[in-house]
Amino acid sequence: MGLIPRGGSSPLQRIARPGGCKTGGVDQRLSLVTLGVSDLGRAREFYEALGWKSGWQEGEDVVFFQAGGMILALWGRDQLAADTGIRDSGGWGGVTLAHNVSSPEEVDRVMGEAERAGARITRPPGETFWGGYTGIFVDPEGHPWEVAHNPHWILGEDGSVRLA
Amino acid sequence: MGLIPRGGSSPLQRIARPGGCKTGGVDQRLSLVTLGVSDLGRAREFYEALGWKSGWQEGEDVVFFQAGGMILALWGRDQLAADTGIRDSGGWGGVTLAHNVSSPEEVDRVMGEAERAGARITRPPGETFWGGYTGIFVDPEGHPWEVAHNPHWILGEDGSVRLA
Repeated sequence: MGLIPRGGSSPLQRIARPGGCKTGGVDQRLSLVTLGVSDLGRAREFYEALGWKSGWQEGEDVVFFQAGGMILALWGRDQLAADTGIRDSGGWGGVTLAHNVSSPEEVDRVMGEAERAGARITRPPGETFWGGYTGIFVDPEGHPWEVAHNPHWILGEDGSVRLA
Repeated sequence: MGLIPRGGSSPLQRIARPGGCKTGGVDQRLSLVTLGVSDLGRAREFYEALGWKSGWQEGEDVVFFQAGGMILALWGRDQLAADTGIRDSGGWGGVTLAHNVSSPEEVDRVMGEAERAGARITRPPGETFWGGYTGIFVDPEGHPWEVAHNPHWILGEDGSVRLA
């Protein structure tokens, strides 16, 4: 894992490497995102209303959704704060998730699904200055998602997203 | 995308589906996680010190890291809050990331790398009640990561993680 020299000016070093490869340090990847929630049932039902499936069973206090090559979890926010060893300041903490789709029309469609499932829309779908088309919804627990069509990135058949 | 019936009691519906597939609603995947930061250079250098590579170039106000089939971005927290249409309450907002590795020894090693790169350790590596071995570090901007060995999940050669 040893530290490797900071990225220099070589053009090669300026190209983001595919994930999963060892770069000589810590693998460049994310395995799990856990969203702290105050009402696990409500949060689970929101994602289920989007069509998501989990292996959750009655009585379990955590919900895991397989999300491509990673996992999205829902867990009590108090439990997550304690487990993380961090003070919960409440509200938003500087993290916004995104869900990329293949067209502006699909952005509209997903935003509609999210709104019908109970999300709050904080930015209706529209064109962005960088040439994309996006909107933002906030789930019932206050976690925001951008739904985006980004024509500059490569959206794979399997849903993976690559920097062009 | 139409809404599909909520998951019933069928055992099949209790199995998390592989990501990337259409489940009849919104694809079950995450494309991008953006971390709001107050000091972009410091944040970028922290992840670079872990060995991560981006395509960032001088003058750009956002840093994108390819992380497996998704992307991790660093962007000004004020800009992210404004773009998200949300009030920033400061501090932690109920999101903890995780990086899974293949052994307890690798947890120790990655935690050591993170600490040397400037992370704060809020929970030193140790065994968990669920049979794993994990530790928590917090990046210079206050975003926590759990470094985890979870023997119950499947860690692929490509770094992907699957619910067993």
